[in-house]
Amino acid sequence: MLRARVLGKPGQDNALWVTADSGQGLTRLLLDCGGRTLEGVPVSEIAQVDHLLFSHLHMDHVAGFDDFFRVNFERTARENHVWGPPGTARIMGHRFRGYWWNHAPDIRGTWWVHEIDGAQVQSWRFEAHEAFEVMHSAGTRPHTGTVLDTPQVSVQAVPLLHQGVSLGYMLREPPRMNVNTARLAELGLRGGPWLAQLKSGVAGDLDVNGAKCSAQSLRHLLEVEPGDSAAYFTDFLLSGAQRERLALILSGVKTLFMEGQYAPEDEELALKNHHTTVQQGALLAEQAGVETLVLLHLSRRYDAAKWAGMLRAAQDIFPAARFPAEWL
Amino acid sequence: MLRARVLGKPGQDNALWVTADSGQGLTRLLLDCGGRTLEGVPVSEIAQVDHLLFSHLHMDHVAGFDDFFRVNFERTARENHVWGPPGTARIMGHRFRGYWWNHAPDIRGTWWVHEIDGAQVQSWRFEAHEAFEVMHSAGTRPHTGTVLDTPQVSVQAVPLLHQGVSLGYMLREPPRMNVNTARLAELGLRGGPWLAQLKSGVAGDLDVNGAKCSAQSLRHLLEVEPGDSAAYFTDFLLSGAQRERLALILSGVKTLFMEGQYAPEDEELALKNHHTTVQQGALLAEQAGVETLVLLHLSRRYDAAKWAGMLRAAQDIFPAARFPAEWL
Repeated sequence: MLRARVLGKPGQDNALWVTADSGQGLTRLLLDCGGRTLEGVPVSEIAQVDHLLFSHLHMDHVAGFDDFFRVNFERTARENHVWGPPGTARIMGHRFRGYWWNHAPDIRGTWWVHEIDGAQVQSWRFEAHEAFEVMHSAGTRPHTGTVLDTPQVSVQAVPLLHQGVSLGYMLREPPRMNVNTARLAELGLRGGPWLAQLKSGVAGDLDVNGAKCSAQSLRHLLEVEPGDSAAYFTDFLLSGAQRERLALILSGVKTLFMEGQYAPEDEELALKNHHTTVQQGALLAEQAGVETLVLLHLSRRYDAAKWAGMLRAAQDIFPAARFPAEWL
Repeated sequence: MLRARVLGKPGQDNALWVTADSGQGLTRLLLDCGGRTLEGVPVSEIAQVDHLLFSHLHMDHVAGFDDFFRVNFERTARENHVWGPPGTARIMGHRFRGYWWNHAPDIRGTWWVHEIDGAQVQSWRFEAHEAFEVMHSAGTRPHTGTVLDTPQVSVQAVPLLHQGVSLGYMLREPPRMNVNTARLAELGLRGGPWLAQLKSGVAGDLDVNGAKCSAQSLRHLLEVEPGDSAAYFTDFLLSGAQRERLALILSGVKTLFMEGQYAPEDEELALKNHHTTVQQGALLAEQAGVETLVLLHLSRRYDAAKWAGMLRAAQDIFPAARFPAEWL
C-alpha cells in the first residue's frame, strides 16, 4: 500500500510524504520540501525518510530543507539520498555548506545526490566529516526508466517543461501475488508454508503439507494484483502536446497528485510561467484514466474564497478531482 | 527607544528582533535567525529589516534564513545587509546559491555581507541578477568599535569564544537631548521652533519667538539623557577571565539578552561546549551592572519542568533576571 500525505497548507508550499508498505518492510519518500512543509511532522518520522526527491529546486520546493537536514545531517543508521534534475548536486552542495561546520571532523554522515536527465543518472557523494566541501563523483548509469527500486516501491522520473527541467515522479508498488482461496478449496488443499514458497516463485517441487507437488502445477492458484501507484507532477507546462505525451506515460497510475496552480481563466499566465491550470490538470487526469486527481500547490495569488471554484472547475471535467484530505 | 522582542520558543531556536525608534525614523535589526524563529512574524515586518546580524552560523542560528531571504531576496527598496564573524560571507554565498536561479537575469537585489573581526570589517557584495555566483570584494575598513551607525542606533560587535568566534552585539541609542521645562519657565521663555534648532546643536543666534538670543547662552536648558541600550550575547565561554573582560565591555548597558543554555549543575558541559550556565550569566549581569538580564536560548536537553528552576538559580544571584515576556 502507498500511503500518501500532502504536507503544507493550501496557497502555501506543499510536499508529498509517501510510505510504501509491503507488510514486510517500508520505504519512506519525501517529494519536495517547501518552506514549513515539515512543521508538525515528528522528528522521529523525518529521521526515517529514505529518499528525498525534488521536482526542481525553486525556492518554494526547497525552502524547508533546513528542517530535513537538521534532523538527518549526521545520520548513519540509514543512507541519505537526494534526487533531482540536472543541477541538483551543485545546489545541494551549497545547501550542505550553508552552515559553520567547525565540528565537521567529529561527525559522520554521507549524502548521495543523484541527478536524473533523459539519458542518465549521475551521482555524487558528500561527506559531513569533510564539511561537505568535496563533491565526490560517484558514477553515472544509464537512465532506463526506473531510477529507484526497493522491495516496496519503484520510482520513475519524467522530465517536465518548466523553463528548464522539473521532474515528475511515478511510484509503483510491485504487483502482489494473492492466493485464490476458492480454487484452493476446490483442490481440497490446506494452506501452509508452501504457499509463501509458491508466491516467492520457487521452481521444482513443494512440500504441500506432506505431499510433494510441482510448483508449476500449483501456479494457477495465484492471482497477480497490480500494486498501488501514484504520480506527483508539479510545476510544468501542460500544452496539448504535453498532455498527449504525459497521458500515455501516466497510463495505469491510480492517483495523480498534481499542481492546481492556476484558475481556468489564468491559462495565459500558466502557459507563460510554465505552470498548469486546474482544468488542464483535470483533462490530463481524464485522458490518462487515473482513478483520482489530487490538486495541491495552489498559487498564493488566490485567496481561500477562490479555492472551491477552482476545484469545481476541475470536477466539471474530471469528477474524481479533490483537494488533499489533510486540507479538509 | 529600543523595542526588543525575543523570537522563537523556550528550548527551541531563538532570535532577537529590535526596533530602534527615534521618533523621526526607525532602524530594524534582526539578531540571528534560527529555525522557525520568523514563524508568526508578518511578511510586511520581515520586509523592513535593515540589518541581519549573526552571532555565528551554527545551524540553530541560521536555519530560519530561508524565511528571511524568501521575503527579501529581490528587495531594492531597502539595502540588504548581513553581518557576522569571519567566514560569514562564504557561508552566506552558499545560502544565496542554494536555489535554482534560472530567472536570475530578470531579478534585482544586492546583498552586502560584512565580516567583523577584532581588527577590521571586510565586506562583499552579491547580486541576484548574477544568481549570487560572484563574491565581489567591497572593501575593508578598520574595526574601531562601532560597526554600524544609524540615526537611531549604533552597533558594537564583541568577539566571544565559541570554539571559534561568536559575536556579541551591543546596541546603543544616541543620547537624547531633553529640555528642562522648569528652567525654561524660570526664564519666562515659551517653546517654539528654536528649541529644535537648539537641540540640533546649531551655533550662533536663535530666533526665540522674535528675540535674538545666542544659542550658547541657552545651552543650559538642555539635559542629556543616555539612550536606551541592549546587548545580545549568545553561545560563548564564560570563564572567570572572560567575565572580567565582558563585564567591563557591558558597562552602561541596560538590558542584557543572553543565552541561558545550561543549568547550574552542567557547568562542566558548558565549559566543554563553550556555552554558559544561567548562573554564569547572572554573575556577568551583576558584575556588569545591567538593569535587566533576559535569558533565552535554553538547551533542548531540559524539559519545560526544569526551566523555572533555572530562572530561580539566576535570580538568586541577580534578582532582575527573567525570561522573555513573549514566553509568558
